[in-house]
Order: sequence, then C-alpha cells, then structure tokens
Amino acid sequence: MRSREWRLERRPDGTPVADDFSFAEVDVPAPVAGEVQVRNLWMTMDPAMRGRMSEARSYVPPFELGRAMEGPAIGEVIASADPGFAAGDLVFSRLGWREVFTAPAARLEKRGRDLPPQAWLGFAGMTGLTAWLGLFQVAQLREGDTLFVSAASGGVGSVACQIARARGARVIGSAGGARKMAFLRDTLKLDGVIDYKAEASLTKALAREAPDGIDVYFDNVGGEHLRAALAVANRRARFALCGMISQYNTTTPEGPRNITQAITKELRLEGFIALNHLDRMDAFLADVRAWHAAGELTQAETVHEGLAAALDAFNGLFDGSGLGKTLVRIG
Amino acid sequence: MRSREWRLERRPDGTPVADDFSFAEVDVPAPVAGEVQVRNLWMTMDPAMRGRMSEARSYVPPFELGRAMEGPAIGEVIASADPGFAAGDLVFSRLGWREVFTAPAARLEKRGRDLPPQAWLGFAGMTGLTAWLGLFQVAQLREGDTLFVSAASGGVGSVACQIARARGARVIGSAGGARKMAFLRDTLKLDGVIDYKAEASLTKALAREAPDGIDVYFDNVGGEHLRAALAVANRRARFALCGMISQYNTTTPEGPRNITQAITKELRLEGFIALNHLDRMDAFLADVRAWHAAGELTQAETVHEGLAAALDAFNGLFDGSGLGKTLVRIG
Repeated sequence: MRSREWRLERRPDGTPVADDFSFAEVDVPAPVAGEVQVRNLWMTMDPAMRGRMSEARSYVPPFELGRAMEGPAIGEVIASADPGFAAGDLVFSRLGWREVFTAPAARLEKRGRDLPPQAWLGFAGMTGLTAWLGLFQVAQLREGDTLFVSAASGGVGSVACQIARARGARVIGSAGGARKMAFLRDTLKLDGVIDYKAEASLTKALAREAPDGIDVYFDNVGGEHLRAALAVANRRARFALCGMISQYNTTTPEGPRNITQAITKELRLEGFIALNHLDRMDAFLADVRAWHAAGELTQAETVHEGLAAALDAFNGLFDGSGLGKTLVRIG
Repeated sequence: MRSREWRLERRPDGTPVADDFSFAEVDVPAPVAGEVQVRNLWMTMDPAMRGRMSEARSYVPPFELGRAMEGPAIGEVIASADPGFAAGDLVFSRLGWREVFTAPAARLEKRGRDLPPQAWLGFAGMTGLTAWLGLFQVAQLREGDTLFVSAASGGVGSVACQIARARGARVIGSAGGARKMAFLRDTLKLDGVIDYKAEASLTKALAREAPDGIDVYFDNVGGEHLRAALAVANRRARFALCGMISQYNTTTPEGPRNITQAITKELRLEGFIALNHLDRMDAFLADVRAWHAAGELTQAETVHEGLAAALDAFNGLFDGSGLGKTLVRIG
C-alpha cells in the first residue's frame, strides 16, 4: 500500500522552513505476525516537536535526518496480524507525520469510542494530562486561587482554563488578538483576559486583571509572560513551568530578569514533563470523563485538512494563528 | 550616655558610597520602666541590608532616611528598668549600626553563654537557620546527594557546606580567589572547589567538579552561577534560592537564559526567607548544638574592629574580600 510521510532532512535554524523537510511517497508492507497496519485519522501538533528537530539532547531523542518524523496520532486498524487488534479498532500511536503505517502491536494502544476520536489527542490525551498535572500535582491549585494561564487559547492552555474553572479557581488568560480574546471571554468564560499584542506592559495588564495578585501561574510562554507573573505573584505562589514557546525559536534566549522575586516572595517554580507521569493517567481520565459529562470540558480545536498541510499546521503553533488544540485530519 | 550610630541619608544608586550615610553622635537616655539599656558587642553584616537601603517594598520595610539603620546585633545589658533583664545579660536585637541604645524590653531576646557570643549572629543565628532551612526544608537534601553552594566561603555558604557534609552530602563550593579556595579545601574540607574568577566557563568548571551532575543547588549568587547550576543539574534537582548577590547592586539585572532547563529536567526552584520560618528555630538549634559539640560546625568569620568600620565591612560583602561571616566588633 502507498503512503506519504514527512521527513526531516536538515536541522532548522530558527523557524523551520519547507527546505528543512521532504514529503515522500513510500510503500507500506502488509503486516506479518505480531504487526498491525493502521490508517492515521488525526495527528496532533505540539511545540515540543521543535526540540526534536534540533540536535540537542532533551527528554526525548532528536528526530533522525532522512526518516519520517514522529508524533502522537489516532488511527484505525485496517489489517491486523496480531491477536490483540482487529480491523476497525481505534488506536493511539506516536507514529504521526504519515498516512498509513505497519508497526509492531506493542507500539499501539487501544482507545475507546466514548469520546470523539481526536479528544484522545486533546483534552483526554497528553494535552489534557499536561494541564491537569501542572495545575493539580505541580502547582497544587486550590478552590478560590487566582490562576494566570499564558497561551490560554492554545491546546494545553484551553484545557487548563476549563478544568481550573471547574475546580473553582478565578482564571485569567493571555493570548494575542481580538479573535482569541473573544474565544477566551465567550467560549471559555474566563474571569480576566489579556491581549498581549495590545498591551504596552504585560505586568501592568496582569496587575489590572489580578488586582489581588496571582496564586498560581501556568507557564506556556516564558519570556515577558514569566516576568509579569513573577512581578504580580502573591507570596508563596506556585509556578507550573510547562513550556516556554517564546524561547524555542530564538537564538537569543532571555531569562526572567526579576527572578529575585522568587526569593522575596518565597515562590516555587517547578518544571514538569507529562510523559514522566503516565502513572497518573487513570486518575486524570476519571476527572476528565466527569468534567466532559458535566459539560465543563469541551475540545477547542483548529483543524488542518490533509497530511500535506502538516508543516503549515506546525508553524501555525508559533505564529499564533491557531485556536485550541492544533490538529491535522489525515484520513 | 553618648553613643554613635550610622544613619542612611540618601538612597544609594548601585554600590553604596560614604556620602549616602552619616556617622552621628547621639545622647542615649537612661532606661525608664519597661526599658533596657544595651551596649552592642557585635553586629552582623548581611547582603539583604542593601535591599532596605532602597525604596522598593520588600519583605522588610526600607530604612528611613535620617535615622539609624537596623540590623542583627548581640549586646550586653548595662542597665535595666525591666524585671526580665539584668545587667550582664547577653541579648540579641535588631538594633545594630549603633554602640549603645535604650529600648523597650520587648525588642530584646536573651541568648545563652554556651556558645561564643557572636555565634548567635552566625551559625546559631539567622545565618545558620538560613543554611539549614534551604538545605533540609526547601531543597530536601539527602545523604549521598551532590550539592553545589555558591558564595561557599561566605556566612551562609560556609555553614551550608559544613552541615551538608555532616549529613553525608558531597559538596562543591564556589568562591573567588586563591585564599578562598584554600579555605574551602583545607578548612571546610569540600569535595570540589571552583574559583569563579579563574574559570572561563562556570558551567564547564561545575561539570568538571560534578561529573555526575548536581542534585541540589544552594544559590547565594544568581546570575552566571544560577545558569551553570541549571546546565549541570540532574533530573528533578532542587534549587534553594537564598540570595542573588550578583543582582543586588546592578541596574541591569539578568535572568538565567537557560531557564527552559527547569522544564526539560523537571527542576524545582524555590525561594525562601528565613525570617518567615522562625517556628523552626528550636529544631534548628538542636541540630546546631549537636554538630557544634561533635566538632562538625565552627564559625568562619571576618571581623572588622569598631563601629566606624561598619560601612567598609558592609561593602566588603560585595567586593568579595570577606571570608565566612562578616562581623563588626563594636564593644
């Protein structure tokens, strides 16, 4: 069977460009014993993929040059030579960036049909787990806390905002542009919104929206956002450091120059990687199913049609055009 | 009775200069009911005093202009009109920067004669409590951990190094200059030493002394030291943010530009202020007396003679000339 796949051909310098990749046609072999053939339906776009395009050692190895890239995907089994899977099964894998693949059964995980298929890549997948871990395990968000979420209209951010509100927190979110402000205010029902593109000072804007300070900061952005959160933090505020998208494509990274606030206010800043906490998945999914059933959690998503659009979808993560979880509908 | 005192006359811009202060003679009234008259014997010099010379709101209020500054001091009661104190009592107060004072009894705390008087300003005072809290409460240092301490030859640093070794940690300390290296190696018996003035790259030096990475960083310096610690930290390392002396006198503060390491390694950075944890004093003193009795904890100190020398003593904190706790012997 024929398939197409995205390969990394060259390590990007700054923002990835088309010449860093190739979009290749390949033959996919039929499955032999212990293997399964899958047609991908959806794949997710994740800022952390930028790290794997670089050579630097991180918590996951870099993508290999000349080979198909990887990433979380949901697909449907089309042929199986393994007793654990049958045609029609919904499966999760990390073998995105390709249309059809054949792989050992051990690389697949079944997913239920009780949620929309792409929810397993969003609020019920690593995206949701990331929001849940950051808020409740790392930052220990409590009812009545004031929470600030940067990139609040993004995949992780939009889940963090919803589940924090479901837990009784006051939530302030930042994003860029009028369309996202409307989304944060009208769809996510946030208590305060900040259009970082329209504010001369993020610190002043945050102090205006959080006149009593913030107790928890969920950082997806770093840079000036982190600096504003340090400035407006209350004593003993907790910062969940989840991502710093402002820092990934820059060759001149910048630290928070008011980091001494962490001392004077006794702040705790803690980084986390959801992949290291998969043991919490069951507790997380129980919460997610309850919130989803109660109508407190829905998937905000930006869908790009067809695998050929994947590179544009990926770069859209950084140009700020996406709303909610950025997905590519493949099949 | 006549006394002399240091007053802040102008808020310093950068490094404090003589014209920012006056050294005034005053009359000290005899104590009336409920008051006690004290002759200061020792006072301590503390980098955090720099913060109080500025106008910015912090965890303690700024010094008032035209009035005597304050700071921890040990003195002897010379006259008492309060039943709780008698001539000859050793007392702790925050009324340093002056020779003799009369104050309400409530501003004094008695101290024992079982330790050298100035130890109450050093390893048995806030200095020691700071080291103890940072290592054991904030960073949860465990036996076998590799610890990095910046400004290791300073007041807090030299206590942190000693008590961490007493708990079975491998300790690497940084300081500047050959005299301090000899002190860290020969007196404090550290496992690794770094002369930051002699190294082209602090990160490379730390990686050399800690080839298996660091588990805990006790930060007294900030800036390039914090950056090196982030770079060499092991997964889930804990950073106790105690002070950032490199940042206090600068008008262009700099954040750690590799702060994203906190995410990829799941680091925890936590600031603390010992003054907020005085409820831990008894537990701390029990440890301190045991370590002192076992010969595992001694006071390293740099003594300046006479209150007139106090300003030079203070600036010595920042020019790196002091070794151990910087004290002024007043009486």
